[in-house]
Amino acid sequence: MTRSLTPMLDRVAGPADLRGLSDPDLKTLADELRQEVVGAVSQTGGHLGSSLGVVELSVAIHAVFDTPRDKLVWDVGHQCYPHKILTGRRDRMGTLRQGGGISGFTKRSESEYDPFGAAHSSTSISAALGFTVGRDMGLPTGDAVAVIGDGSISAGMAYEALNNAGAEGRRMFVILNDNEMSIAPPVGAMSSYLSSLSDLSRKGPFGGLVAMAEGMEQLAPKPVREGARRAREMVTGLESRGTFFEELGFDYIGPIDGHDMGQLLSVLRAAKTRATGPVLIHCCTVKGKGYAPAEGSADKYHGVSKFDVGTGVQAKARANAPSYTGVFGDTLTDEAARDPRVVAITAAMPGGTGVDRMAKRFPGRVFDVGIAEQHGVTFAAGMAAAGLKPFCAIYSTFLQRGYDQVVHDVALQGLPVRFAIDRAGLVGADGATHAGAFDIGYLGALPGMTVMAAADEAELMHMVATAVAHDSGPIAFRYPRGNGTGVTLPERGEVLEIGKGRVIREGQGDVALLSLGTVLSDCEAAATMLEAEGLSATVADARFAKPLDMELIARLAQTHAAIITVEQGAEGGFGAMVLQAMAGEGLLDHGCKLRTVCLPDRFIDQASPAEMYRDAGVDAEGILSTVLRAFGRDRKIVDLASQRG
Amino acid sequence: MTRSLTPMLDRVAGPADLRGLSDPDLKTLADELRQEVVGAVSQTGGHLGSSLGVVELSVAIHAVFDTPRDKLVWDVGHQCYPHKILTGRRDRMGTLRQGGGISGFTKRSESEYDPFGAAHSSTSISAALGFTVGRDMGLPTGDAVAVIGDGSISAGMAYEALNNAGAEGRRMFVILNDNEMSIAPPVGAMSSYLSSLSDLSRKGPFGGLVAMAEGMEQLAPKPVREGARRAREMVTGLESRGTFFEELGFDYIGPIDGHDMGQLLSVLRAAKTRATGPVLIHCCTVKGKGYAPAEGSADKYHGVSKFDVGTGVQAKARANAPSYTGVFGDTLTDEAARDPRVVAITAAMPGGTGVDRMAKRFPGRVFDVGIAEQHGVTFAAGMAAAGLKPFCAIYSTFLQRGYDQVVHDVALQGLPVRFAIDRAGLVGADGATHAGAFDIGYLGALPGMTVMAAADEAELMHMVATAVAHDSGPIAFRYPRGNGTGVTLPERGEVLEIGKGRVIREGQGDVALLSLGTVLSDCEAAATMLEAEGLSATVADARFAKPLDMELIARLAQTHAAIITVEQGAEGGFGAMVLQAMAGEGLLDHGCKLRTVCLPDRFIDQASPAEMYRDAGVDAEGILSTVLRAFGRDRKIVDLASQRG
Repeated sequence: MTRSLTPMLDRVAGPADLRGLSDPDLKTLADELRQEVVGAVSQTGGHLGSSLGVVELSVAIHAVFDTPRDKLVWDVGHQCYPHKILTGRRDRMGTLRQGGGISGFTKRSESEYDPFGAAHSSTSISAALGFTVGRDMGLPTGDAVAVIGDGSISAGMAYEALNNAGAEGRRMFVILNDNEMSIAPPVGAMSSYLSSLSDLSRKGPFGGLVAMAEGMEQLAPKPVREGARRAREMVTGLESRGTFFEELGFDYIGPIDGHDMGQLLSVLRAAKTRATGPVLIHCCTVKGKGYAPAEGSADKYHGVSKFDVGTGVQAKARANAPSYTGVFGDTLTDEAARDPRVVAITAAMPGGTGVDRMAKRFPGRVFDVGIAEQHGVTFAAGMAAAGLKPFCAIYSTFLQRGYDQVVHDVALQGLPVRFAIDRAGLVGADGATHAGAFDIGYLGALPGMTVMAAADEAELMHMVATAVAHDSGPIAFRYPRGNGTGVTLPERGEVLEIGKGRVIREGQGDVALLSLGTVLSDCEAAATMLEAEGLSATVADARFAKPLDMELIARLAQTHAAIITVEQGAEGGFGAMVLQAMAGEGLLDHGCKLRTVCLPDRFIDQASPAEMYRDAGVDAEGILSTVLRAFGRDRKIVDLASQRG
Repeated sequence: MTRSLTPMLDRVAGPADLRGLSDPDLKTLADELRQEVVGAVSQTGGHLGSSLGVVELSVAIHAVFDTPRDKLVWDVGHQCYPHKILTGRRDRMGTLRQGGGISGFTKRSESEYDPFGAAHSSTSISAALGFTVGRDMGLPTGDAVAVIGDGSISAGMAYEALNNAGAEGRRMFVILNDNEMSIAPPVGAMSSYLSSLSDLSRKGPFGGLVAMAEGMEQLAPKPVREGARRAREMVTGLESRGTFFEELGFDYIGPIDGHDMGQLLSVLRAAKTRATGPVLIHCCTVKGKGYAPAEGSADKYHGVSKFDVGTGVQAKARANAPSYTGVFGDTLTDEAARDPRVVAITAAMPGGTGVDRMAKRFPGRVFDVGIAEQHGVTFAAGMAAAGLKPFCAIYSTFLQRGYDQVVHDVALQGLPVRFAIDRAGLVGADGATHAGAFDIGYLGALPGMTVMAAADEAELMHMVATAVAHDSGPIAFRYPRGNGTGVTLPERGEVLEIGKGRVIREGQGDVALLSLGTVLSDCEAAATMLEAEGLSATVADARFAKPLDMELIARLAQTHAAIITVEQGAEGGFGAMVLQAMAGEGLLDHGCKLRTVCLPDRFIDQASPAEMYRDAGVDAEGILSTVLRAFGRDRKIVDLASQRG
């Protein structure tokens, strides 16, 4: 019989079991939990570094607070692996981020210990305040605890929540998990400020802070607190620096060492016992803590592939084609070399969006505004008004954060901001929260907006070139996560004619597949499959969701028995826009089979992108089925199923 | 010959003329300008109080800075009347906020002195930073100056911008116009903080601050500055309190008296001469300054109707029916009395949204989060997760600010947040920036979302009741600005069946008008007009944009030669959703004339709502024309026009 390597963890079926353990046992548990996380993620890939940084914090919070009655809200949620292991999901960690498996984020439907799911940043304080109000109105809920990183807390949304929670003055807990790291090195003045606070903890011994936690002058009424704080400053020689949070109405405790279990437990217990209003506990941690390869390279270990625990070497799939992100970054860099007015804006994702490539060559022309999409979009609008050519590179799902700014500051003023919309469509392991599903619709509705989608990486190059040239109004182009099709790349992108699509394959009049974006290859495959079914298919690449190529659409309508629009986006997008435009031109009056293949009206859980699109019915098979049903020829497999039924 | 009451103002054709005036003359000019603003707004109505608060500031900025080369960005822009008078638009002030007239906000297309338009709050610092980068990249632009109110600066977006601008460290100017007032009394911890700063100025003489402005230790390099600040504290006994902004990387000057022209000029000149990085000038003003009725009632004088200058009495149109806002507020209050779980959230618009009515009766259950739509939506989601029934009352145009939160925190988690969407459709004098044009599309795209639109104020009551009862997922209901139709109101709203419309009038099969929202009365009028043209019209009220009443739609399609959807929203909304659903069911296959009447693909400038809808073609005449064109019977008036041409 092998002796378990995690005897303490084996005793923990749920958080309640933690509350019976001694402090040294909790420390041992944390050590075992760290090994468990490393082992699990080495098999699945995932957000390793952030999870390793909060191992002690996860144990300490569950030990001190009465979860699930107390509501623990992890901001972003990608640091939740230790939490998942402690809350009954240990045996499912092997399914993390996979189809049918558990999510890589917190998720309400997964566990009562996940009272509020996340994936986008900076939502936790708002949600925690909501639970707090519920408690104060007599609902059966305990204290709310938000755990938020230093990157996330620098976003405007978190500031709004701090501002409101501070004014409300209700008892609640915000734990600032400060690892001086968002995905990219953090930027902004707030980040420098937090560094200056945590430098204190890194320079000096923590002894004084433990004493402080025990004495808890911070939680005493204000006048007492002031005096105690001044006294502490005189004794320790450390100036009190938590004024930013105190000015927002929070009691500030810290900075403390987030890997020192004794200190964590003592501070959390004291805070829990004595807090009467909102408390911010500033907790310094190290991303990747305790696993050398992750600690040594926090950025590369933010999200990892499967890896070898011994060497830390990550398994990397060999790519047959460059990534869309890379092609965008390189093309933008080339265009920037030609046109000195090209600048780029990213909201804390220089690597994810590929603008880091441009930053290497033109560091003064790439602006990382931090997690601040609202500001980022309007900052870009200001630059456009000044005469620059800003490329605002934001994932589809995150551009939702700047929607009003796109409407009010960009579209209404007709300013030529270029939106490079990466991660359009379904994105795989990050699941429904990161899907870029809605951009075609929410941008297409805006007067004066031009919306393109790239069918392959060469098309993406053309669209970057088109966006550089298009100086008369806003323009957006979307492209997916992952690698291109391997098509030969031109030396330089060509400027496309605005609002003109292209016919890829001429059929004989049965059906026209009108494709938008990289789903074009599925349309081509479906056309071949349709031939085998005796139906001839034309395939066209619309290129533009707005303005639509009405000449092309009218011709297809007049010469085909059916038109099927195909897109990797939600209802209300390209297909709906085509139908509405056709209605306006009377093109629907005379009977033409119209169908729209798009994402269905439900959220799609994580799996590989191909599996997700299969689930959604947005692939060659799905297109084929839609066409066959439109022609009254349901497929054999469907017939067989119905015969069985 | 009458002697002009504004001799100094008469000498000013543009800002350049200010630069030749002496300081006393500028003071005189400001006094005349104030009278001019009062006189102009008494004739047109408008944002009087905020404009009166910045009279001296407007004069001082244009006198000191080199506009339009220097870029002056007014946040929100509703305080721009003095600015408009000074920048060549004096003779057009009588057309303010009227059809064909000048906008009530700053607007790029109106003047080169409006380098960046606004209307929504908190965008100015972002835009100013954009201009600043343009200047630093060699474009022919000078310094950027953002003027932002204490309400606006408390929004997350402004914080994001301060954070980024502070880190960038570029020379730029932010003038905080602190009147302790947004539209409603300001809320949030930041507001208390600003009050504590400005209390200093209200308590003590400003002399020391003028000296400071002249000494300008704040603009010296950091170490020098620290020393100078401490020295000043010792001398003046005033603790330096601008640390919030200093921690964000700004040099802080203030608070100063924004009505003391000498002080303003001296501080602005010193700042302009010496600033090397970002500077925040904290300027205390009084909303409505210098006009007693406005000073005495800053809230009622935020936006005014035409008024009598002598008495301050505003002209009020007699309403024949209650406002939608009022009906919502009263109904919500009644529902809250029945169900203790009902709570309401507003983002700084308690009066505008009508939740102030509920707050009077249930003050602990109405939450004003300030200008913070992102936080407001997620806070509501947290309350829903806790088991409350939150009504998030936000204007359509401002809900765009919380779009990602609606997607990520509400819809993805299926949380029953109720969105009360006021100011849906076109809104009149506030113009294109405030149009609630996009909500049907951007909400309708979200899985699990229910979207309703009220046809009249009784329907609104039913929809409030329906939202209270609907606890299985998010639900939204939209209604317009202005007064209802005068329909008899029920004692209490009825719970509607989700996804079911109603037929208002049965026709004989020619055309079915499928209406969503208050445009129903236009549909009924159009139906009568169609009868006169020999076409029989069915009129149905869809009630739900999502889920659609497919049974009703299928029946209409099978029994009518044409279906016309009608809505007060943009393309990609209700009509597009109906078409896409019909396509999916094969209802377009056999030829049925389909048309969508909706807002056109352009922004509609301010006028009365009726005029704006006429311009848009969304009224009875527009519906009639659309139907006649669909039947190949273009109207006589059109024929006459073409004969003339």
